[in-house]
Amino acid sequence: MTSAVTTPVSASRLKTFFAPRSIAIVGASDNSGWSRNTFGNLRTGDFKGDIYAVNPRRDFVHGQKSYASLSALPEPVDLAYVLVGTDGVLPVMEDAASAGITNLAIIAAGFAEAGPDGEARQRQLTEFAREHNQIVLGPNNLGFINSSANVMAFSQPMIWPFSRGGVSLLSQSGALAVSSLDYFVARGVGMNCLVTMGNEAIVNVANTMEYLVEDPSTRVIALFVESFRQPDEFRRLAARAFQLGKPIVVCKIGRSKLGARAASAHTGGLAGDDLVIDAALRQLGVIRVDSLEDLIITAGLLDSYGVMQGPRVGIVGASGAMGVIMSDIAEREAIQLPDFAGETVDKLRAVLPPFATPQNPLDVTGFVIVDEDVFRKAQQAVLEDPNLDIVLLFAGLPKSEDDRMFPFIKNSLEKTAALIKTARPQVVLCGGIQIDYTPFSRELRARLDLPFVLPDASRGLPALARAIWWSEKRRAAQADTQERRPPVQAAEPALSARPWSEARAREYVAAADVPVVPGEVVSTADGAVSAAERLGFPVVLKVVSPSLQHKTEAGGVALNLQDAGAVRNAYDRITAAASAHVSDVEGVLVTVMRRGGVEMLVGVARDPLWGPVLAVGLGGIWVEVLRDVAYRLLPASRADVRSMLGEFRASPLLHGARGQERVDMERLTDAICGIADAALSLGEQLDTLEVNPLRVSGAEVEALDVLVTWHSSSKPALEHNPSE
Amino acid sequence: MTSAVTTPVSASRLKTFFAPRSIAIVGASDNSGWSRNTFGNLRTGDFKGDIYAVNPRRDFVHGQKSYASLSALPEPVDLAYVLVGTDGVLPVMEDAASAGITNLAIIAAGFAEAGPDGEARQRQLTEFAREHNQIVLGPNNLGFINSSANVMAFSQPMIWPFSRGGVSLLSQSGALAVSSLDYFVARGVGMNCLVTMGNEAIVNVANTMEYLVEDPSTRVIALFVESFRQPDEFRRLAARAFQLGKPIVVCKIGRSKLGARAASAHTGGLAGDDLVIDAALRQLGVIRVDSLEDLIITAGLLDSYGVMQGPRVGIVGASGAMGVIMSDIAEREAIQLPDFAGETVDKLRAVLPPFATPQNPLDVTGFVIVDEDVFRKAQQAVLEDPNLDIVLLFAGLPKSEDDRMFPFIKNSLEKTAALIKTARPQVVLCGGIQIDYTPFSRELRARLDLPFVLPDASRGLPALARAIWWSEKRRAAQADTQERRPPVQAAEPALSARPWSEARAREYVAAADVPVVPGEVVSTADGAVSAAERLGFPVVLKVVSPSLQHKTEAGGVALNLQDAGAVRNAYDRITAAASAHVSDVEGVLVTVMRRGGVEMLVGVARDPLWGPVLAVGLGGIWVEVLRDVAYRLLPASRADVRSMLGEFRASPLLHGARGQERVDMERLTDAICGIADAALSLGEQLDTLEVNPLRVSGAEVEALDVLVTWHSSSKPALEHNPSE
Repeated sequence: MTSAVTTPVSASRLKTFFAPRSIAIVGASDNSGWSRNTFGNLRTGDFKGDIYAVNPRRDFVHGQKSYASLSALPEPVDLAYVLVGTDGVLPVMEDAASAGITNLAIIAAGFAEAGPDGEARQRQLTEFAREHNQIVLGPNNLGFINSSANVMAFSQPMIWPFSRGGVSLLSQSGALAVSSLDYFVARGVGMNCLVTMGNEAIVNVANTMEYLVEDPSTRVIALFVESFRQPDEFRRLAARAFQLGKPIVVCKIGRSKLGARAASAHTGGLAGDDLVIDAALRQLGVIRVDSLEDLIITAGLLDSYGVMQGPRVGIVGASGAMGVIMSDIAEREAIQLPDFAGETVDKLRAVLPPFATPQNPLDVTGFVIVDEDVFRKAQQAVLEDPNLDIVLLFAGLPKSEDDRMFPFIKNSLEKTAALIKTARPQVVLCGGIQIDYTPFSRELRARLDLPFVLPDASRGLPALARAIWWSEKRRAAQADTQERRPPVQAAEPALSARPWSEARAREYVAAADVPVVPGEVVSTADGAVSAAERLGFPVVLKVVSPSLQHKTEAGGVALNLQDAGAVRNAYDRITAAASAHVSDVEGVLVTVMRRGGVEMLVGVARDPLWGPVLAVGLGGIWVEVLRDVAYRLLPASRADVRSMLGEFRASPLLHGARGQERVDMERLTDAICGIADAALSLGEQLDTLEVNPLRVSGAEVEALDVLVTWHSSSKPALEHNPSE
Repeated sequence: MTSAVTTPVSASRLKTFFAPRSIAIVGASDNSGWSRNTFGNLRTGDFKGDIYAVNPRRDFVHGQKSYASLSALPEPVDLAYVLVGTDGVLPVMEDAASAGITNLAIIAAGFAEAGPDGEARQRQLTEFAREHNQIVLGPNNLGFINSSANVMAFSQPMIWPFSRGGVSLLSQSGALAVSSLDYFVARGVGMNCLVTMGNEAIVNVANTMEYLVEDPSTRVIALFVESFRQPDEFRRLAARAFQLGKPIVVCKIGRSKLGARAASAHTGGLAGDDLVIDAALRQLGVIRVDSLEDLIITAGLLDSYGVMQGPRVGIVGASGAMGVIMSDIAEREAIQLPDFAGETVDKLRAVLPPFATPQNPLDVTGFVIVDEDVFRKAQQAVLEDPNLDIVLLFAGLPKSEDDRMFPFIKNSLEKTAALIKTARPQVVLCGGIQIDYTPFSRELRARLDLPFVLPDASRGLPALARAIWWSEKRRAAQADTQERRPPVQAAEPALSARPWSEARAREYVAAADVPVVPGEVVSTADGAVSAAERLGFPVVLKVVSPSLQHKTEAGGVALNLQDAGAVRNAYDRITAAASAHVSDVEGVLVTVMRRGGVEMLVGVARDPLWGPVLAVGLGGIWVEVLRDVAYRLLPASRADVRSMLGEFRASPLLHGARGQERVDMERLTDAICGIADAALSLGEQLDTLEVNPLRVSGAEVEALDVLVTWHSSSKPALEHNPSE
């Protein structure tokens, strides 16, 4: 299914594709709304090159000469925009091939989205395109917009004047791309490119992303995706964009089980585990949002501000209630609202009426209407606060000159516009409630040269939190030149020759410097007693058998053996019990019995989409009842592993909550990195390597049980290992 | 502080207040925007009675005669709308008193919100009003709107034509009430009343709520509040509204610690524990939302639909991506999207193109544009599905006639409008992205007589989920005629004469039929041994001392004593240790030592705002690390208690997760109800009654430790009892 989507597309060829100097509209017709839209959009968008109409059944279309075919054009155009019906598509591709035209946007539906017949048609299309070195966007899409090149090759009505800017949106849904145009305008976000992907017969999400990552006019990439079909490419491009300082914001839908079902019905794409996707995106420095609205607002904020210069936010407004709302959302979104510096408090005391409280968020009170100067001075004091990186001002844009208090607001906005240019902190504006920009407010914003205005607290502050998160992550990455860990070499495939016993798995991770509870494999009851005496009572006995999957249920485990007699009895009992189930009992593992401490789960499993994924959480109930686990794609840095240890809800236990001894986080990090490396070195045949529990108590870190399974063998769930 | 806000306000007097037949604007002036606004709003809003201007320094204001004083008016008006400055307020009140005018809206600021001087002024105002039987709205507010009575007594510009309807908004914030007017219009929600509360010198939130509860033109009450200052009244009125089937939607801000701080700086009001507020509102059948936008949308939906007729939702649209988004949000919001019935699947198979999947949410695919009839038939099939109570259709309103595909959309909407009237399921419309209604779309909706249209998935589905929750709760309340528990009588105050020992607390709850672990109080080591022999080893010994707060730390507890010798030693050791700390050791409690099972916390504590609150959760780490507790106000029904047992995250443990025996929920409910009743019967002096742990294992339910503290004694945290 993916074999056909790789070969001919390169970023340099897409550059011509998305910025053609000449375009032919094939299937142009005065009777077709789509044709009228496309022509109209190109013209209104001030396309500088030639636009040809191709329709063999007409002499004139849209007031200009119509050509019988692409071959009949005076030149081979840079782009054929194909509006013919499903059955006409292949003939047009043939015509393009003879005319030496290699770039086609194909709008018609009726291909892979339309059952087996459509799939067959799409295979034909794809094969033809590959044979003739054609780049095809679509089929089943709505075209694209590249505003910095004045190419509005889009089949749906657009809104004029077009809202130009640095956000490029790549959408796997055509319908929502159309809705998004309204929202860009309503929220005053400037667009550079809009690409509707359609069926991705040739040009896929990764190719387009690559183009946008390298496109200098694209400052922020917004992705609306139903599935990641090229995860390796996505990782590479996300890393590249992060390195370039170009934020990527993703709305990846299909979070729910229901959603995943709907997605699979809709696209046939593979929807991976959503928590893994969350982890992957976070690790790659990609911002994830949950709605199209949040996608566009977050992208708009980042387009306007670039990098947020720090995490510390001060808030100033003239409504106490709004300050409380902001505080509520700030806490939920982990936005820092530090106390004002003492000097700021002093300045505010000198300026504000005595009944105002000089704290963050600052409510300058309704007094502002009586004395506008008070507001100005209070704002100035906050803007000079050394504790703040960002100052958020409540200031929506007026809808019209008839708007309430327009002269006051306009005067205030003018002064704010001046402040924004000179203040040390970044100044971010936020409206009081989410209503649309009007043409008047857009024009006023442009005239005052104001940055993006957040719509309201409930959508605006989460966007600000995400922009801060991205900016901080980027700063941390720039500062982080150490702690790179050497890449892990996969061991020879021979390792995976057959199932592994727990004893073999223990040895393997111990050899990789992961601390493992002391133990010995023995093959007689006497041997077990001597081992127990060397190790110290109490001990645990477990049968060693590569094929025995559920040792405890099979009677193959004996816990808390206090003396030689108990060990001897247990040896006989568990080997007899296990032998009733399997024939490959290789002996018995004797280990020290541990008590107390915190029991963690550290596992590596292979995600079908993202490859090996590291899972870290507390064991037992935390995993089984709460699914309280942090994930990372591998390889992961030490910093990644360290931050995982703060991400699950039971994390406070590691820091000494509930009378637990404080855990040595560096040793724990070492052990987890060791387990991750051990898993990676087992290569692609590995299904799961799981340490459960990894016992942690103060400075003691020790694997008590290790499980390794291979792809051929049966597959236990990553987080649940009740067999011990 | 609250003593002044009770006396003269009754619902019948407020009826005249909010629907006056004549109004005088005091301080009317052509130079004042506020005066122009108020006059203009009353006139444009078609006020039927007389409007008088009062200003001693003018002959004519707003083109009509101006009177020198209220006393000079030809009649005592029903409402004096007072726009004079702070210092002019009291003289106007005196003037009103002599003119026999008893209803005043006072707009001026400079009262309790403005420091000690303002507080003094407000005290004066309040006293004067009470002496003269005056009802005062404000001061420091923006007036009110009562559209069904054509009274637009509001000082800020309004939007015309006014969007009339059944939602009444009561706001403790003036600024946000003004913003909300824009949002009502932008979202096509119809307003009946808007009341800005100001400082609540006389008319408070509870009075106004009472008026709205009884007002026949108010179908939904929306509250924007910073604090509940009259919780008893609020409870009574919420119950009354619930009984009447009038939904209340609340945006209570100040959730966060930061927000609570900001709220207290702003209002001086008491912000209770937010989780208790959550629980209280849920229990009262009040919908809670987190933003002004959600407040208005949820209220608008309920105004349009009244009661949602069931919880089962089907979704139909022509965008696969939107279906996936809907599924994601539905899962998060616990909206049921059942499978279509077999007959519906058959019908859809017959109608839809073969590549469409007949599942819920239904994507009729882009085919709808090719064959509109397909969409219609598919929609019809879903509307006939017996598994569905509600069908949600993706259908936004077009912005203008120039809108894309307007004829198609209009035709589709017309057919939908007809369907809505005849279909058995309720049909709810939802747009694709949140953009404002235009005047055109408002007019179109009115012409087609369409119900409220949800703005988009991310705000619309949560609103639908809340409306369904309220409707289901109401249906359950109507069905629930059984299970009322008799009211609990408080015991005589003598009970609280001094601190209670654990032994006394045990006896007390045991007498209230709460099962308690077997135990005896003894006063000698020999007595302890005989008790242990009667009870059965192993046992636990704890010193009995009303004043010893931290028994374990003081060495007053010995666990897991296996034989007589151990008991004897322990007796001597713990009594000696305790006697070193306190002088009131009354003996030793010997109880059976239990192991295993699930340890729960069941506690009752007195919330400063809501009175006795029941807390139920798992004990230990669940409380301390996760704060994983469900709350209810007392008294609570058995149904309440039963549903609490499903609300905390660790609830699955009660149902047999992680190898636990399934708990007998009825016995557990009995025990919790018993503990709650025991606490209530201890009266108002009780600070905390806490059973921690209440051990649960299968059918065994037993209090292992009981703590009772009184208001005079020192106060342990409700959820944390590390002293044992």
